[in-house]
Amino acid sequence: MAFLNDNFLKLKAGYLFPEISRRVNVFCEANPEAARRLIRCGIGDVTESLPPAAVAAMHKAVDELAVRETFRGYGPEQGYDWLRAAIAKNDFRDRGCDVADDEVFVSDGAKCDTGNILDILGAKNKIAISDPVYPVYVDTNVMAGHTGGTDEAGTYSKLVYLPCKPSNGFIPEPPKRHVDVIYLCSPNNPTGAAVNRPQLEAWVKFALEHKAVILFDAAYEAYISDANLPHSIYEIPGARECAIEFRSCSKNGGFTGVRCAFTVVPKTLTAQTKSGEFKPLHPLWLRRTTTKFNGVSYIVQRGAEALYSPEGNAQVRALIGHYLGNAKVLREGAKQAGLKVFGGVNAPYIWVKLPKGVTSLQAFDKILAEANVVITPGSGFGARGEGYFRISAFNSRANAEEVARRLPALKW
Amino acid sequence: MAFLNDNFLKLKAGYLFPEISRRVNVFCEANPEAARRLIRCGIGDVTESLPPAAVAAMHKAVDELAVRETFRGYGPEQGYDWLRAAIAKNDFRDRGCDVADDEVFVSDGAKCDTGNILDILGAKNKIAISDPVYPVYVDTNVMAGHTGGTDEAGTYSKLVYLPCKPSNGFIPEPPKRHVDVIYLCSPNNPTGAAVNRPQLEAWVKFALEHKAVILFDAAYEAYISDANLPHSIYEIPGARECAIEFRSCSKNGGFTGVRCAFTVVPKTLTAQTKSGEFKPLHPLWLRRTTTKFNGVSYIVQRGAEALYSPEGNAQVRALIGHYLGNAKVLREGAKQAGLKVFGGVNAPYIWVKLPKGVTSLQAFDKILAEANVVITPGSGFGARGEGYFRISAFNSRANAEEVARRLPALKW
Repeated sequence: MAFLNDNFLKLKAGYLFPEISRRVNVFCEANPEAARRLIRCGIGDVTESLPPAAVAAMHKAVDELAVRETFRGYGPEQGYDWLRAAIAKNDFRDRGCDVADDEVFVSDGAKCDTGNILDILGAKNKIAISDPVYPVYVDTNVMAGHTGGTDEAGTYSKLVYLPCKPSNGFIPEPPKRHVDVIYLCSPNNPTGAAVNRPQLEAWVKFALEHKAVILFDAAYEAYISDANLPHSIYEIPGARECAIEFRSCSKNGGFTGVRCAFTVVPKTLTAQTKSGEFKPLHPLWLRRTTTKFNGVSYIVQRGAEALYSPEGNAQVRALIGHYLGNAKVLREGAKQAGLKVFGGVNAPYIWVKLPKGVTSLQAFDKILAEANVVITPGSGFGARGEGYFRISAFNSRANAEEVARRLPALKW
Repeated sequence: MAFLNDNFLKLKAGYLFPEISRRVNVFCEANPEAARRLIRCGIGDVTESLPPAAVAAMHKAVDELAVRETFRGYGPEQGYDWLRAAIAKNDFRDRGCDVADDEVFVSDGAKCDTGNILDILGAKNKIAISDPVYPVYVDTNVMAGHTGGTDEAGTYSKLVYLPCKPSNGFIPEPPKRHVDVIYLCSPNNPTGAAVNRPQLEAWVKFALEHKAVILFDAAYEAYISDANLPHSIYEIPGARECAIEFRSCSKNGGFTGVRCAFTVVPKTLTAQTKSGEFKPLHPLWLRRTTTKFNGVSYIVQRGAEALYSPEGNAQVRALIGHYLGNAKVLREGAKQAGLKVFGGVNAPYIWVKLPKGVTSLQAFDKILAEANVVITPGSGFGARGEGYFRISAFNSRANAEEVARRLPALKW
């Protein structure tokens, strides 16, 4: 009698995004007129076309596969050397971070990697996450059996929640208690907050003292516009001994539908066996990758490589500039609506505080019904997301401007 | 103090393929002349160019992503409806198998899926695998903590090994004892054996009686040339209640470097909770997919869809015909070498028995040194693979013919 994984039964019904999608569909079917003027600022999905450099590189790659002499089958599971080298140089060594080519593992998504990384970690780690938080960190830990059950607000027992609130600028401080694994996401989804150097130094210090591992999700790194902020955790001395970093081509190159990301596992990072010995995690992640993955599409890897060419890089900068311009417009609109606004400067997300007494789901329904705009209710990101909503800046400029016009008309 | 997953430390050093690759590199560096005439029949990687229908579809998809109006970001994690529909109709319903579109989950690899499926199964299942076996089934169970340690021959305690040998035509019989989860691979990697209808009926009967789940890996389905053999486990009544099927575009469409596969989880398949309730696995796999995966590249999904067009299908048939033609040539060559030969009729693999007293690693080294041909030693597939080697038919015809000429010259 085959057993299923009971931990799945602890998951709260429905991941946030499918539920939002359902409500939007119901609304649109009931209100065809409103549906025509609907503007989606919910899911953080890019809207602009791919950088031409990536398009050209992918056409070329398809052509190579069309000819026997240049055909390529299985690539290295951890990514082609030329892509790993381009990443390690441009994203890390050129910024003064000591990252070797073979510490970069190319994958098909940062979401996948932040879930899969649990494969190489033990079952007994005390896990800390921010609140609010990207739900994938929580759900993958629930699936892996690292949590107990959940209360009404969706808070799981056994996890350590680190509160993110206006008083700490939505950047969590290291806890007073011991934890083994810490998820940090900066620039943050959903709050748009970005960690500064002293804050990140405090985290690295904590991790080194506790021999903890920081899982640093920098998928939105390209949106950092403040020159003083760190782009990588490896800018902080000691991080090579305590941190894994996740990056993505989704939000810089617009690769959400193309699929490419990467994870850095320094060879100097260790974790403990049951018998108390410290061993490097790099060989475990390499083994996991070669055994449970077969590499990213050759076509896609060529597209990702092109993002690091001079033209590709300029095109990426232009894309980021476009979305950050939207964020500025949307911040203004939300402010004019009389709401308190966070984020949207070093991130493509604006985090908006609701008036007292309005729940984020009520706000979602109201904004959908009255402004015909889809936002993401903060409660979907955890208990401390309640009372907030997230606006995504991934849109056309015209749509961002229209949303900025509609929001102030809402009466709260 | 972060803990690592100690189960990884139980893994035998090196997965088979990296070790072979290392030995080949050492040989080639030491023997540059021989290196020039080297023919690789080791790893099961395709060599011929992509079907033109897939090439055209992928160019079109890249062009769509290059234009804002036709740009696509995140797709459904479980695959686009049009691809799921094409698969369910062509691969299943047209062959009389009752598979609904939304029972098909598109992924980036059958290797990934056969590993990831363990996420939704419980930790206490008794697992049965064939011996010899595709090493990924074993290694992913080791990583998940479903096994004990290993002996000299690489046999793990707690796993149930099902012997595959000449007397059963390399198709394992259901065991006398109870097991919960059974891996079946047909057409088989490495032996090339394909299960017939009565054999598969016996397995479905066993699984239903034991309320077990069969993980049916049919990645090589397209190579079945005997009209009487089942292509899908769902051709057997009752299989919808006991089986998950894995398929791939790697070996039919030549997608090893492009990356697309799919898994069928029938809605009527259940497994047991700890409290003894039976619940469907389909919602768990859907939840796993939406939480830990972000879908296959849009470009790749369009390429896969094209394999189901009339032209695409004809081009796939031609590719398969080419590789099966190679297999015939290689079978002949190995026979003329005085060796006993299995497989290679309904599969792209030929499984060759060595003379008594010759180990498969000795044979690997001898064939590399004397014939300058790379094969895969059977011992890499488990204890009962010892005394055999695998020849892959993925090659040009000229190479297959050359290997068939060289093999008979070896003295054993």
